Amino acid sequence: MILAIDIGGTKYSLALATAQGEIVKQTARTTDRAGGAAWMVDHILNAGRVMLAESSEPVSACGIGFGGPVDFDAQRIVNSTHVSGWDGMPLPDMVHKALGLPAIVDNDANVGALGEFTFGAGRGSRNLVYYTVSTGIGGGIVINGEIYRGSDGNAGELGHVPILPDGPACACGNRGCLEALCSGTAIGKRAANAVQQQGRRGRGIQSAAEPGGRITAKAVFDAARAGDPLALDIVEQTCVYLGMGVATAMNTLAPDVIVIGGGVCKAGRVLFEPLRKQADRFLMPIHRPHLKILPAQRKDRSVLMGAIALARHDL
Amino acid sequence: MILAIDIGGTKYSLALATAQGEIVKQTARTTDRAGGAAWMVDHILNAGRVMLAESSEPVSACGIGFGGPVDFDAQRIVNSTHVSGWDGMPLPDMVHKALGLPAIVDNDANVGALGEFTFGAGRGSRNLVYYTVSTGIGGGIVINGEIYRGSDGNAGELGHVPILPDGPACACGNRGCLEALCSGTAIGKRAANAVQQQGRRGRGIQSAAEPGGRITAKAVFDAARAGDPLALDIVEQTCVYLGMGVATAMNTLAPDVIVIGGGVCKAGRVLFEPLRKQADRFLMPIHRPHLKILPAQRKDRSVLMGAIALARHDL
Repeated sequence: MILAIDIGGTKYSLALATAQGEIVKQTARTTDRAGGAAWMVDHILNAGRVMLAESSEPVSACGIGFGGPVDFDAQRIVNSTHVSGWDGMPLPDMVHKALGLPAIVDNDANVGALGEFTFGAGRGSRNLVYYTVSTGIGGGIVINGEIYRGSDGNAGELGHVPILPDGPACACGNRGCLEALCSGTAIGKRAANAVQQQGRRGRGIQSAAEPGGRITAKAVFDAARAGDPLALDIVEQTCVYLGMGVATAMNTLAPDVIVIGGGVCKAGRVLFEPLRKQADRFLMPIHRPHLKILPAQRKDRSVLMGAIALARHDL
Repeated sequence: MILAIDIGGTKYSLALATAQGEIVKQTARTTDRAGGAAWMVDHILNAGRVMLAESSEPVSACGIGFGGPVDFDAQRIVNSTHVSGWDGMPLPDMVHKALGLPAIVDNDANVGALGEFTFGAGRGSRNLVYYTVSTGIGGGIVINGEIYRGSDGNAGELGHVPILPDGPACACGNRGCLEALCSGTAIGKRAANAVQQQGRRGRGIQSAAEPGGRITAKAVFDAARAGDPLALDIVEQTCVYLGMGVATAMNTLAPDVIVIGGGVCKAGRVLFEPLRKQADRFLMPIHRPHLKILPAQRKDRSVLMGAIALARHDL
């Protein structure tokens, strides 16, 4: 049995699973950001202890996906942009000491890529490119069945590919990155601006907004699904940007499959149909017959599934 | 000893070399495009026969870099955009029959990447990205010491990454690819347009042009080196586009080194200084300390050197 942990910016999940990827128990909890890393680690280790105690079979390893940059070689967290106190934390060591299990950590985009590769939409492929599109955009690359980390350990930063040289500011400090245009947050922002500018034309999106009036990516996709013209424009423009990113990854890496996970992928056909069209448009013709863009199959569990695969593979 | 062959759109070269990469004899000839592939193959095989006859030591293998798409698995040429008659040609088989040597072929960008990796600017690296910028832009990727070809065999098409969605038409059929903006041909075209539009401001470039008045990339870089403001503007804009491409490759693959070969790399500092600045600007900050952009060391011989490495490695 394997203990799988997914630590995100707003919640964490733990699962007890077989090495074949069958989850037998799962628990999730919302993060108290104010508590910082120490609070989170405490709670995660306690939850882990409970899980191990309740397991009817011996647990032999722990895999962790972390929502922020990880120094994989050193097996330390680099930092978290959401929660303070993570800098340099040797999380696997701490798990080992507290729970007596060998543990391994990587950033959640890499782990999600491995999850979809091993147990999801990428099963049977050899090379895979994975995007997780939610509050930010993360990327993970699998080459010949292995996570590709590059020479500096940070390959696969597909959310920070430059798309619009003078575009909106990105969390990374640059402008016009894919993330700054197409993350859930960015889609919501672009929609809010459009609604403000376009008066009556913005009503469809406004009526799909959250109770407080906040315009989210979900509101945009809901309105687009209902045929709202402004929402459809925003989705189309999102797919132009995302299509440029996907075509770039395909021209560069020619993977068997490109998997899109994260909250935004739940939009379904209203996103994937125009995305396929735009990616195809920007793709070198020689690659077109091979373009395969799929939604993540494991959805909210891509990272947990990847943590199982990571522990199985590396420990 | 190894026989290395570099078949380009406008000329071909043959070299006799040791497996350690020492070229002991080399010959080159301009291509008669009108003669077609049959003419070229005839002449190449004859030149090969002469080389083998003159070699004082036994020659055991032949490596070939071809200026066009190659089906590596089938060891056949796909086609050439420059010379007719190449479609589907099993060139290594023909070399084997005519010269009695096992032979292997790949496209010249992949082979050039391997040449710089093994014997040039990329020596000692593990992961390398190579651009050849001349009449077009080709790309080659080396991962863990091996050419990366992707699932469909056509990975590394870095010249066809989309940069300007509505930019100028590209030879591949799309618009605004890196190649359509930054190849030698494209730089010359953009400069010719600028000269036409800007009247007096174009004189510096015009006076650096070829005798017939044709404005080439070389004229632009020569004028920029002499401080011509319009030429410097054109070089700067070229480096914005090329910097976006290079930053994308770095964010995606995080190689040890990015090598720029092909005729345009001969421009030297006037190209590489603004290119490094622009690539750095578009690069995710976490990668900045690791960005290393180098001109190809083997220049016109990158492909021949790669053909030696390819034959040594695969045969």
